[in-house]
Amino acid sequence: MIGASAYGMTTSPRIDLDRLLGRLDAFNRIGALPGGGNCRLALSDEDRAGRDLLVRWMRDLGLTVTVDAIGNIIGVRGGEDVAPVMFGSHIDSVGTGGRYDGLYGVLAGLETCEALNDAGRATRRPLALVAFTNEEGSRFPPYAMGSLVYVGGLALEEAYAIRGIDGATVGEELRRIGYVGTVRPGFLTPHAYVELHIEQGPILESEGVVIGAVEGITGLSWTEVAITGRAAHAGTTPMHLRRDAAWAAGEIAVFVRRLAQGMGGHQKGTVGRIELYPNLVNVVAERAVLTVDLRNTDETLLQDAKRQLAGFLDRLAAQEQVAIATRSLARFAPVSFPTEMVSLIETTARELAFSCRRLPSGAGHDAQMMARLCPATMIFVPSVGGLSHNVREHTEPAHLEAGAAMLLHSVLRLAE
Amino acid sequence: MIGASAYGMTTSPRIDLDRLLGRLDAFNRIGALPGGGNCRLALSDEDRAGRDLLVRWMRDLGLTVTVDAIGNIIGVRGGEDVAPVMFGSHIDSVGTGGRYDGLYGVLAGLETCEALNDAGRATRRPLALVAFTNEEGSRFPPYAMGSLVYVGGLALEEAYAIRGIDGATVGEELRRIGYVGTVRPGFLTPHAYVELHIEQGPILESEGVVIGAVEGITGLSWTEVAITGRAAHAGTTPMHLRRDAAWAAGEIAVFVRRLAQGMGGHQKGTVGRIELYPNLVNVVAERAVLTVDLRNTDETLLQDAKRQLAGFLDRLAAQEQVAIATRSLARFAPVSFPTEMVSLIETTARELAFSCRRLPSGAGHDAQMMARLCPATMIFVPSVGGLSHNVREHTEPAHLEAGAAMLLHSVLRLAE
Repeated sequence: MIGASAYGMTTSPRIDLDRLLGRLDAFNRIGALPGGGNCRLALSDEDRAGRDLLVRWMRDLGLTVTVDAIGNIIGVRGGEDVAPVMFGSHIDSVGTGGRYDGLYGVLAGLETCEALNDAGRATRRPLALVAFTNEEGSRFPPYAMGSLVYVGGLALEEAYAIRGIDGATVGEELRRIGYVGTVRPGFLTPHAYVELHIEQGPILESEGVVIGAVEGITGLSWTEVAITGRAAHAGTTPMHLRRDAAWAAGEIAVFVRRLAQGMGGHQKGTVGRIELYPNLVNVVAERAVLTVDLRNTDETLLQDAKRQLAGFLDRLAAQEQVAIATRSLARFAPVSFPTEMVSLIETTARELAFSCRRLPSGAGHDAQMMARLCPATMIFVPSVGGLSHNVREHTEPAHLEAGAAMLLHSVLRLAE
Repeated sequence: MIGASAYGMTTSPRIDLDRLLGRLDAFNRIGALPGGGNCRLALSDEDRAGRDLLVRWMRDLGLTVTVDAIGNIIGVRGGEDVAPVMFGSHIDSVGTGGRYDGLYGVLAGLETCEALNDAGRATRRPLALVAFTNEEGSRFPPYAMGSLVYVGGLALEEAYAIRGIDGATVGEELRRIGYVGTVRPGFLTPHAYVELHIEQGPILESEGVVIGAVEGITGLSWTEVAITGRAAHAGTTPMHLRRDAAWAAGEIAVFVRRLAQGMGGHQKGTVGRIELYPNLVNVVAERAVLTVDLRNTDETLLQDAKRQLAGFLDRLAAQEQVAIATRSLARFAPVSFPTEMVSLIETTARELAFSCRRLPSGAGHDAQMMARLCPATMIFVPSVGGLSHNVREHTEPAHLEAGAAMLLHSVLRLAE
């Protein structure tokens, strides 16, 4: 354990688990779904309510709050005039999200600040707690939009113009909820970025390990596939004369599963969204729009998966005489975090006596964007049953406490 | 040709094609879709506007209009106190409907009445022109609801309680649009029922035949399939641990196509509706709801198709560890029309010098319900390209005229 002596004359800062759990409970009343879980889609009314609460809490702790032009919320705890240590995550959720995805990293960041306040502990480097806009990308692609804009990977005006699944644009919705700041995204260049997050997968739990030191982030490709066939009567149109967009959508869903299973390893493949038109029992579908999510830790394999999908779509279009158009919604190559950052997490875990292993992240995160701007890494804690993007997402309180302590002490190391 | 002499001292009644086309044009401005076609889903505002126009036109022709308790509109042209000859069809459409499906039979019925008026021609039997409520069933299953209630095949209160795809009930919507009459459905027992309709399939056109004498209606089974899997993160959840409702929906769409093609003959199979939940790019779907439309002219084969589907769903549920629940939305055995009715159509066609062939209907129609109450049959005219339930549905004006003349003279035969 790190003793008080390591930090001079002040009390040793300590995570207050009850306070952290209390904030998680209070925050998760926003956008709570009947039966559990949360829906705080980016830039929705629920997202606004969450932002308002976070800003209030940041100010209560004495942080100086800045909202940038893409709506990222950054609360700074003072230090010398040097580059700050940044940490945080996001507070938006998917449509059927759990209690911890993103939110845990932000509220553990608040707890880190409050623990330092309680201990009367100043840091040489300023601390910058961040909640990035629209990490999930469920409503507006691409995911990690706020951090991507922050690091200059997406132009502000381009981001504003992106239209969501409900037809509204990012710019309109940011203005509507009152979170368009005047400060340029990227106004702080951090010394380092650390993101605490639930694993959202089964590895730590299945191996009985408490802390994951994240080596990097899986590469990802999101493609929207639009199929145009021919509407026809379901009772009179001979099977061989059909140009059925719904059937083609079904074939794609089946192919994507087979592709990922056939490639094995870290390859994932998901069709999560399908919309049919006119979507009626007795009409052969004229049009289908679906999404394909492909991921791999290996860029070459991911490119191969994309090629195989493209080839399949070509064959399918010819076979059914349907038109198939594709549009990239997001594309990120795999990211490796710097060894010294991953080692810092391992060292901190060793000193706090938590079991720890290195692992890649199958999910995308803001840290993968921040890695373009400064040394970055992530800390994972176990997800029960590996479940996430699911209302039953859960992490044990002891693990929430361990992760928060890891964040506190990793940040302290970086800030000295 | 039937000469004036056949009808005594009056002028021979003649179809006025321009008048019929004019009514079709005027009516199809209601619910017109940008780029062509129509959306007049049952009991929608568009359906109400269509009903209002039809009632006005019926009254202009001197018909006595009655709306029954399920919203069927019946306009009676006087005769002796004997059972009337009933004819008509429906004015509702699917979500992306064409200009003729249903509407043609009703407006050709109006033209029949006006042609008789113009010719000063009375009939022994009263003529009853009907527009049945919700024939399509696209919004509220089952299809042919108005005629089914009319013949006593579905209780009024049961029909009122049916909930549509948008959550509203039949009863609520009938009241909202002001078309709940006080008269009991079935208040008139017809002497016979004749329905003129576009074929909605490719047979007449491909054989160069103008008139179809419809022998019967294909049997049909509509099943709603609800799949419950487990929501999960698309990037972190190993493929073999998924319980993916969207993938299962895809497998069903693929199976239904293969089933129908494998059985061949008159077997049809369609998955026309799929809804996913939460329907997001990066979430393995928790739930899918889809419909399966199976049809066959042979009841034994249709039962076999249903059994094969049920077996497949059982195997799929076990393989993916998803729960699959099914619910019947509609189930009708094949119907054969009486030989004397089909012969009457053939005889009329011969006298009017139109080429004619017998054929079954792959689509369901109100005539299939009316066949439970009285001798019934249908007259088909060609559909260009066999297209229907499609905004590009088309029938040549000469064929529209031929069908209307067939209706006029078939009705006259039955009414004497």
